[in-house]
Amino acid sequence: MAISVDTFFLELNGQGTLQAQIQQMIAEGILSGRFHVGEKLPSSRKLAAHLGVSRITVTLAYTELLANDYLTAKGRSGYFVSQNAPVPPKYMPLQRGTENVDWDAALARKFSGGDMLSKPRDWRNYRYPFIYGQADRNLFDHANWRLCAVRALGHKDFESLTTDYVDQDDPLLIEFIARHTLPRRGIAARPEEILITMGAQNALWLASRILLTHNRTAVIENPCYYSLRSLLEHWDCDVTPIPVDRDGLPPDALPDATDVIFTTPSHQSPTTATMPVDRRHKLLERARDLDAMVVEDDYEFEMAFLGAPSPALKSMDRDGRVIYVGSFSKSLFPGLRLGYMVGSEPFIREARALRSLVLRHPPGHIQRTAAYFLSLGHYDAQIRRMSKALANRRATLDKAIDEHGLTVAGRGIMGGSSLWMSAPDHVDTAQLARTLQGQSVHIEPGAPFFSGPDQPKNFYRIGYSSIRQDRIEPGVKLIAEAICAC
Amino acid sequence: MAISVDTFFLELNGQGTLQAQIQQMIAEGILSGRFHVGEKLPSSRKLAAHLGVSRITVTLAYTELLANDYLTAKGRSGYFVSQNAPVPPKYMPLQRGTENVDWDAALARKFSGGDMLSKPRDWRNYRYPFIYGQADRNLFDHANWRLCAVRALGHKDFESLTTDYVDQDDPLLIEFIARHTLPRRGIAARPEEILITMGAQNALWLASRILLTHNRTAVIENPCYYSLRSLLEHWDCDVTPIPVDRDGLPPDALPDATDVIFTTPSHQSPTTATMPVDRRHKLLERARDLDAMVVEDDYEFEMAFLGAPSPALKSMDRDGRVIYVGSFSKSLFPGLRLGYMVGSEPFIREARALRSLVLRHPPGHIQRTAAYFLSLGHYDAQIRRMSKALANRRATLDKAIDEHGLTVAGRGIMGGSSLWMSAPDHVDTAQLARTLQGQSVHIEPGAPFFSGPDQPKNFYRIGYSSIRQDRIEPGVKLIAEAICAC
Repeated sequence: MAISVDTFFLELNGQGTLQAQIQQMIAEGILSGRFHVGEKLPSSRKLAAHLGVSRITVTLAYTELLANDYLTAKGRSGYFVSQNAPVPPKYMPLQRGTENVDWDAALARKFSGGDMLSKPRDWRNYRYPFIYGQADRNLFDHANWRLCAVRALGHKDFESLTTDYVDQDDPLLIEFIARHTLPRRGIAARPEEILITMGAQNALWLASRILLTHNRTAVIENPCYYSLRSLLEHWDCDVTPIPVDRDGLPPDALPDATDVIFTTPSHQSPTTATMPVDRRHKLLERARDLDAMVVEDDYEFEMAFLGAPSPALKSMDRDGRVIYVGSFSKSLFPGLRLGYMVGSEPFIREARALRSLVLRHPPGHIQRTAAYFLSLGHYDAQIRRMSKALANRRATLDKAIDEHGLTVAGRGIMGGSSLWMSAPDHVDTAQLARTLQGQSVHIEPGAPFFSGPDQPKNFYRIGYSSIRQDRIEPGVKLIAEAICAC
Repeated sequence: MAISVDTFFLELNGQGTLQAQIQQMIAEGILSGRFHVGEKLPSSRKLAAHLGVSRITVTLAYTELLANDYLTAKGRSGYFVSQNAPVPPKYMPLQRGTENVDWDAALARKFSGGDMLSKPRDWRNYRYPFIYGQADRNLFDHANWRLCAVRALGHKDFESLTTDYVDQDDPLLIEFIARHTLPRRGIAARPEEILITMGAQNALWLASRILLTHNRTAVIENPCYYSLRSLLEHWDCDVTPIPVDRDGLPPDALPDATDVIFTTPSHQSPTTATMPVDRRHKLLERARDLDAMVVEDDYEFEMAFLGAPSPALKSMDRDGRVIYVGSFSKSLFPGLRLGYMVGSEPFIREARALRSLVLRHPPGHIQRTAAYFLSLGHYDAQIRRMSKALANRRATLDKAIDEHGLTVAGRGIMGGSSLWMSAPDHVDTAQLARTLQGQSVHIEPGAPFFSGPDQPKNFYRIGYSSIRQDRIEPGVKLIAEAICAC
């Protein structure tokens, strides 16, 4: 590739002769790793015109660099970065002034350092990846996704690809969600009551930003999805964690000051508990008494291979106080960053305006691709295939757990893709996870899911959405052995 | 398409016999528009099993609906929504309880109703679309974009497509930006100093959220990009608009309390003024004296067809106090939602953590597609093609403006894709725009760009990035005539 003339600038008050400055620019480009061996330099005519200097100045600079082995000349075709040019050190610090910003003062707010589960980047190389929430290459219908994506790149779809939607969504995707996805959860919604989001995380963020301020109280489940807790920390609101039981969040335990309730009734995260229908009614009654809003994260409802899922909490909501959050991260893949939220029109109007301020809209091409994948029936076929594979893996996993004497703390009655496990009290599962890593086993320590200073350390989560069926039993065996050795 | 059995639920305390309830569910599905003419109903066996009722109950319900013309039977292949079924009213309100949430109380914050330029959705049908910032079908290299997108969907790229990056970016894209894009602006940056964002809007939002609180002061240019003003309103900080002159933001006018300066030095938005190099140095000196941060929105630098662009403010920043914002919205297309920010590592670390809380990361497929498009050289070719077309249109526009006696208030000395215009004082350009709409001319009224209650009403912007060259002169003529008639 040729080096563009546009990357050269003369400094206003540069040191030395023009020729020396040009030499230096080129040498620095090579030393800093910007210019690679074999790349062609601009012609002396072009560079001279661009910098506003005489051509002979550039030619002299090039000749000097030739002599120093930075460049080579190939007859009439010009100058190239030489094979013998000095090699840039791998992590050479760039030359720049001493930065003198006082970052502690300049940063009005800090966001780094939250409680996060760190997933190993190379988890696909693990032999026993009991990882949660990642796409399985063998289950995802890559071929049809690709066909839909190509179709969405066609001339007919040029507008949906390129348009500045500002605050709109792809009408095809909205229609499909309204007509086919939501009715499966018992939810009837008009297009104005649906907003496409960058995954469930974005939906939870939008909802919390709209519903919370410093003088309001949010209730979260304990344990809960750690990223929800992290994002609530930044609104200066009170956050009250309520311990869940085997039926999920207990409505009686909600404090009187509650303004917003974050809950996962279908499949509590991470314990996988399903809230019974009568408790759902009680939760809604309690919310009405408190005049509180409810944010329902209905993740993974598609993976119901052990029993029909109950209708969503939102389907029982006569008041309009439930904000429903759905996602395609688990059923398609997380890198897609596509989810949706459903709520009453006054709420969705604010969420749409806020989304527009923060990021405008999820990219059109992705929305249209998903709309095709859903409407052509590939999505349903994929869910069936995934559910079948998950059911098989789950059976193998349940058997292996029995066999090796592990303790299940929560197992989704309708399916799902993970189990919530407990080790004996003295076991620190963060340490356990590190030990198992050495044996190519990945498990998720449970502590980050808990609120407060006394996080129990003996829980862990094992996912079965990305592990081969024949690896499950030997993997469980290794976990059991590692726990015994603690 | 068949209607899925999963969309049927029996209500816990439903009214009437089971048969009646099933009939009602189906009739409601048809009446509400969820079930379309010709769609196949689940077999009686399947639906009975799903609902846990006897098959004869379902069959009786179907027979009844057949008699009422909701359904038709096609021999052995089952029941379908009848052509003669009652047609749903177009905007039939869905049956639901009376919502009783007090939205004024429930919404802790409001975001809707900001100053926005509303673009007509059907602008492509306008004969004279002097619209700003949209993709031109004739200039965008759709064929190669498609090839890159398809390549990024390949098996080799499965990970970059599907992976849950959490807080990472596509290393290919980052490398290209660091090695090729930023050097054109005179900027040297390491990968840890670059963050991919959902367009420039998202970058401005992230920067403002990190740098501002209620006790800080932001300086913005007046006039400025209206969306920047809208997003700053929500951080409760002081916002001081500083009038720009023909060289952009005057450093001497910055008040002593300034904490963060938002500026567009290359190409002031919307006046298109380019800040001279010595003023840039003065601006940085003033920022150092104030210990203020600078957010540089370097939009449209690629469209420099009239003169070489000056290096970015960031390239002169020895302190690390400039946050640089770039975007592919103008050079590729706005629906892509892809931009980037460059800053010192302590800042980018916070921006990355905040982005992860809000939306995780821009979709992998889009990042990889852009990386291919850039690295295969299509991007540079496209910029050249666009610049050439814009130069031609600009020449035609300049000529037409002279001919018809319109007044230019600001024209980018290096190029760009718009002119900032003024009409006589008594003209309200919002009214003018409405009048011109009737003649299929689109212009942008200027008032939303100004801060404060006394927004001048006589400015307007005309874009030339989406209008055919032969339409420019007749369009300008219509604008001139409409102004005369005011």
